Amino acid sequence: MSRSGKRTVNSRILGQHLGLTDAQVRRDLSIFGQFGQRGVGYPVSGLTQAIREILGTDRSWDVILVGLGNLGRALCGYRGFSQQSFRLVGVFDNDPKKVGTTISGQKVFSLSDLEKIIQEKSVQLAILAVPAEAAQEVADRLEKAGICGILNFAPINLRSATQNAAVVNVDMALELQRLAFAVVNATTNS
Amino acid sequence: MSRSGKRTVNSRILGQHLGLTDAQVRRDLSIFGQFGQRGVGYPVSGLTQAIREILGTDRSWDVILVGLGNLGRALCGYRGFSQQSFRLVGVFDNDPKKVGTTISGQKVFSLSDLEKIIQEKSVQLAILAVPAEAAQEVADRLEKAGICGILNFAPINLRSATQNAAVVNVDMALELQRLAFAVVNATTNS
Repeated sequence: MSRSGKRTVNSRILGQHLGLTDAQVRRDLSIFGQFGQRGVGYPVSGLTQAIREILGTDRSWDVILVGLGNLGRALCGYRGFSQQSFRLVGVFDNDPKKVGTTISGQKVFSLSDLEKIIQEKSVQLAILAVPAEAAQEVADRLEKAGICGILNFAPINLRSATQNAAVVNVDMALELQRLAFAVVNATTNS
Repeated sequence: MSRSGKRTVNSRILGQHLGLTDAQVRRDLSIFGQFGQRGVGYPVSGLTQAIREILGTDRSWDVILVGLGNLGRALCGYRGFSQQSFRLVGVFDNDPKKVGTTISGQKVFSLSDLEKIIQEKSVQLAILAVPAEAAQEVADRLEKAGICGILNFAPINLRSATQNAAVVNVDMALELQRLAFAVVNATTNS
């Protein structure tokens, strides 16, 4: 049941919330399977569960964070992660002045303990917030230690050395370009 | 001419660099116009210029940054912006201890000078890195002062009050969800 008490929802209402047309909603969902019934709509609970499974958010994920500069510290204190089933289980830096201290409730580990902790805790995801020049080397270590997904904030286009890890690159300048594109094309809200 | 000295490039080579099929490259570019010739390819200089115009990066953009917590300070020192024709012309915070100091070469202005400086410098774009509870109020002030694009890092879904400003929301948790999705679906590099 939805928060407003409805048992079903249709593509028009979903589209209104998402800023999409109803046809786009139907087409996007149809890529993953058949979740609704023509003229009836989608069952709210069934669709919610299906989307969670598609996104991988029906389970919880252990995450480590490497690099505690300004960006790393901001990410360390970011409350949105735990709201979305991501659990920060270790933060790392190579600065001896930071190692052993506590940042946003997280004890800071030395970068030399990276492999040990990944393996002990069977961590799957890593957030990389180290300087550009260190990023590929740390990424290679993460992969070798068993990390299967890296969220990269360093301003270089990381590649997976072994193709065993998924890499998502977050490029702040690209986000500004998206904004400039939206302004030039006079689109509101994206 | 390309860096490697070629005058033309085809969709297959572009696709290899982008991790896309040649058909995807041709289809995406065809949305904006006809830039190439069948069997010959795209002229490198013409296509580069056309893409710059489409993205709005053929011109330079003045940008202000509001909020100098950890994330704001990280963004303030981010070199990628100036490499992409974005120029930081003012940074703002409401903490009296920060106002008047210099962060990454930028003098910190008081939030009370926001409207004055936007209008004096005819600033168009703003980066918002204030706490969630302050974000909508600051966004409304930015819009009223003439800002036409807001890149929002605060963890709320900002809406443009007047529909005059474009808003791009950057959601760190969403990026982690993209990563989880990539891992679940065993996709490498995105």
